[in-house]
Amino acid sequence: MTLRAQLHRQLAIGSWPDGKLTGLNIFLIWTILGALGIAVIATEPAIHEPWRSEILIAEMVFGAVFLLEYLGRVYAAPEREGPGSAWGKRLRFMLSPIGLIDLAVVIVSLAPMFVANAAVLRLVRLLRIVSILKFGRFSAAMREIGGALRERSYDLLVCATLAFVLMLIGATGLYWVEGRIQPDSFGSIPRALWWAVITLTTVGYGDAYPITTAGRFIGAFVAVGGVLLVALPTGIFAAAFSDAMQRRREALARAVEEMQGTPDQISRP
Amino acid sequence: MTLRAQLHRQLAIGSWPDGKLTGLNIFLIWTILGALGIAVIATEPAIHEPWRSEILIAEMVFGAVFLLEYLGRVYAAPEREGPGSAWGKRLRFMLSPIGLIDLAVVIVSLAPMFVANAAVLRLVRLLRIVSILKFGRFSAAMREIGGALRERSYDLLVCATLAFVLMLIGATGLYWVEGRIQPDSFGSIPRALWWAVITLTTVGYGDAYPITTAGRFIGAFVAVGGVLLVALPTGIFAAAFSDAMQRRREALARAVEEMQGTPDQISRP
Amino acid sequence: MTLRAQLHRQLAIGSWPDGKLTGLNIFLIWTILGALGIAVIATEPAIHEPWRSEILIAEMVFGAVFLLEYLGRVYAAPEREGPGSAWGKRLRFMLSPIGLIDLAVVIVSLAPMFVANAAVLRLVRLLRIVSILKFGRFSAAMREIGGALRERSYDLLVCATLAFVLMLIGATGLYWVEGRIQPDSFGSIPRALWWAVITLTTVGYGDAYPITTAGRFIGAFVAVGGVLLVALPTGIFAAAFSDAMQRRREALARAVEEMQGTPDQISRP
Amino acid sequence: MTLRAQLHRQLAIGSWPDGKLTGLNIFLIWTILGALGIAVIATEPAIHEPWRSEILIAEMVFGAVFLLEYLGRVYAAPEREGPGSAWGKRLRFMLSPIGLIDLAVVIVSLAPMFVANAAVLRLVRLLRIVSILKFGRFSAAMREIGGALRERSYDLLVCATLAFVLMLIGATGLYWVEGRIQPDSFGSIPRALWWAVITLTTVGYGDAYPITTAGRFIGAFVAVGGVLLVALPTGIFAAAFSDAMQRRREALARAVEEMQGTPDQISRP
Repeated sequence: MTLRAQLHRQLAIGSWPDGKLTGLNIFLIWTILGALGIAVIATEPAIHEPWRSEILIAEMVFGAVFLLEYLGRVYAAPEREGPGSAWGKRLRFMLSPIGLIDLAVVIVSLAPMFVANAAVLRLVRLLRIVSILKFGRFSAAMREIGGALRERSYDLLVCATLAFVLMLIGATGLYWVEGRIQPDSFGSIPRALWWAVITLTTVGYGDAYPITTAGRFIGAFVAVGGVLLVALPTGIFAAAFSDAMQRRREALARAVEEMQGTPDQISRP
Repeated sequence: MTLRAQLHRQLAIGSWPDGKLTGLNIFLIWTILGALGIAVIATEPAIHEPWRSEILIAEMVFGAVFLLEYLGRVYAAPEREGPGSAWGKRLRFMLSPIGLIDLAVVIVSLAPMFVANAAVLRLVRLLRIVSILKFGRFSAAMREIGGALRERSYDLLVCATLAFVLMLIGATGLYWVEGRIQPDSFGSIPRALWWAVITLTTVGYGDAYPITTAGRFIGAFVAVGGVLLVALPTGIFAAAFSDAMQRRREALARAVEEMQGTPDQISRP
Repeated sequence: MTLRAQLHRQLAIGSWPDGKLTGLNIFLIWTILGALGIAVIATEPAIHEPWRSEILIAEMVFGAVFLLEYLGRVYAAPEREGPGSAWGKRLRFMLSPIGLIDLAVVIVSLAPMFVANAAVLRLVRLLRIVSILKFGRFSAAMREIGGALRERSYDLLVCATLAFVLMLIGATGLYWVEGRIQPDSFGSIPRALWWAVITLTTVGYGDAYPITTAGRFIGAFVAVGGVLLVALPTGIFAAAFSDAMQRRREALARAVEEMQGTPDQISRP
Repeated sequence: MTLRAQLHRQLAIGSWPDGKLTGLNIFLIWTILGALGIAVIATEPAIHEPWRSEILIAEMVFGAVFLLEYLGRVYAAPEREGPGSAWGKRLRFMLSPIGLIDLAVVIVSLAPMFVANAAVLRLVRLLRIVSILKFGRFSAAMREIGGALRERSYDLLVCATLAFVLMLIGATGLYWVEGRIQPDSFGSIPRALWWAVITLTTVGYGDAYPITTAGRFIGAFVAVGGVLLVALPTGIFAAAFSDAMQRRREALARAVEEMQGTPDQISRP
């Protein structure tokens, strides 16, 4: 095998028959997570000030790794399956979504050397995680979860509508009842909506809460509704996942049956 | 097809065979949501003051659309199925619940031109959403969820009773233990009930909490009970939805079997 | 039918073949709820002071109703099934748990006329609800839920143990890390346990929270653990309820099959 | 049976055929829980000061019990199954994980007599609970739960990744939007992450919350995402437990069928 083919095999995710990550891929995942971690921690002034130069060096190293990886992928692109000349395949990779993300990550990673205060920008690296998510079993689990949710999307839409209506009624109620007593929290419906969403999700910061009896009745109603509206989608998810597993097992059982092909002997699934 | 028939087909939800929303319906849904949004935002003084005239114009436009829609529905009412003269059908539509809601929405939408401070009134438009909810698949999902809940209504009643008893015990306990130490929060059982419902639903604003050891034991007991009382209905919902799906699949399987009608050949569902 | 038999039938819960509540029972349930409501509200000084005499009258009326009911049950006791003389049955009823609860409720309801400040005492009426819970379908749902929980009691014990260990580790960690910085909240493990239970149940009052980086890591760990420890029992409940429904359906199917008794014709459950 | 064999049988967990705990084991479990409780409570200065000597005596008694238990286990070790001389088995027990934990607990329990301020150290006893967890049905339930989680580990990894990404996006958003307005809470991404994890888990202490409109939109997004991210793993757990129960029942049904061995008679599972 040529060096280019070996490089391609090492860089491509899931290109090995067993769907495992290659050593180079594992190294790159840790590099992405490390670069993300540095970018996150570097926004803290108490850390940034005393470690200024160390952070810059780390940024440069990560930038160099991402640059090398990008160049390696461009170089190895002709090994990809499909028709087309070597440079045609390279160009196609460079213009593909994953290629553009890679390029953006490289540019962003090298930016701090030229631009100051690029903290938020550097989180573009988060996008790079997308490419990790393609890996075999993780991707299968993601597709399965996504499928179960999409199948029950109308049930979830009903839950969302109920939550929205309950939130609007609660917010309007408190605006009406306590709008004049607590103008900062309930002086308008949009302000009361902040209270409603924080109560309905059972977060409850405590920056806004009703203080009159009528307001507390509305608050209790929204809080109880919140519990039920958490319970509903959970139940729907549970049923959807349970159904998906059941179907998979039955499909398996049917396949086994067909393979045996004995019409008068019924093997339980 | 006459213009009136076409208007009826455009206005009626689900009147097309595939149960899809017509273009006019989608436009009306967005109008309702837009009018709701404006009514909500207009309660905020910081927005209302500088945009006073723009909001009034928007209100008038929305009011005009709702008026036109109402007149259109009245005009197209004779296209509805069933016996009766054209004007009889129109009158029947005007007196039907959906017709009365439409009329109320029109009046409410045109009210701000005559009455000041009609903010809460304008949320009557929320009722108009009811007519959207009739649309095909959304309505089916809603009926399914409602059916699953109704079927397990006694289980949910047990959960509600347990929650009620736990809340009452917790509130009485804290009234007893901390009623004199924190009279604002626990000076009476109704006051302590506010704390109990906010703790049991795990919202926890932090406006009231026990400070003595005995009170904290009761608080911990209510908090743990709250977690279990969230878990119980969720589990019941999950089982109900799972059961409904299972039954639907088995009904389908039986139907397929009957169609094949081969007594000695068993096709797995 | 004699008057005594009719009284017995009216008073006994579920004594009618269809398991419905009798008119007298519904009246008594509302009386209990009303008496409970009055006892709860009367603890609020702002209500108690101006309505002192009205509350006393209501208490006396409720007390009289409970006394009449108790006397009625004693009088009608001989109608109960089983051997024994009329007075033997009466004595047996008076010494049965439900009879003693009834007597306690009567005494407690008549107490405010003699004793002042009997607020908490009056909540003994809550016990009276126990007798309502016996009613047909409610009781069946309760037994079903109880059965599902008992069957998975070891799973729930595992969850409780995990929660306990996580709480203890979290509390010890914060006592170690922030015990000296925030002695009021984390100055001892028992104090830190209050924080741990309120975080683990995701209530989060905000009266105690970590402020150092190490403390916040422990706090995040406990909060995430809390979410998973809510999810675990919920999943276990869901599976237990789902399993109970499945079993009931299969038992039904088997029963139907046996009734048909045709070995070569298989009707799907 | 010799005394040594009897001691071994009493000390070994699950050594009796019915998997029940022996009397000595139940006594030891209560001793461990008691010692833990004393160690926890003794960290509270308000209790430690007046009861100093009583606590020291209790600690010594618990230490003596643990020492005796350890010596008993070493003495009874030759009764264990497997080859090897009596002292070889003893040494093997002393070097086994459970033996080392036991030794650590003994040393830690006797430490307070020599070292001051050994509070946290004494919680090493918590490890001793590990040995309790081996007991029959508890252990089976734990293995079952662990198995269900391991089977769906990729689904849970997807949930964790989604939670991580949502947290990072929320924290970055608030750092961007409110970093300058509330530098204490959102002045850096690590600080904002504390807010994000407390919001996503729906704990909501209220020590940090957004105050601008843009920040509140991000906050609402994270709070709603938190509810869904609680619902997802719960649904996955529920389906996994449901599936495990289903499989066990079907395995049982198949076993029954095979035992009956009648190919033309199908007994429903």
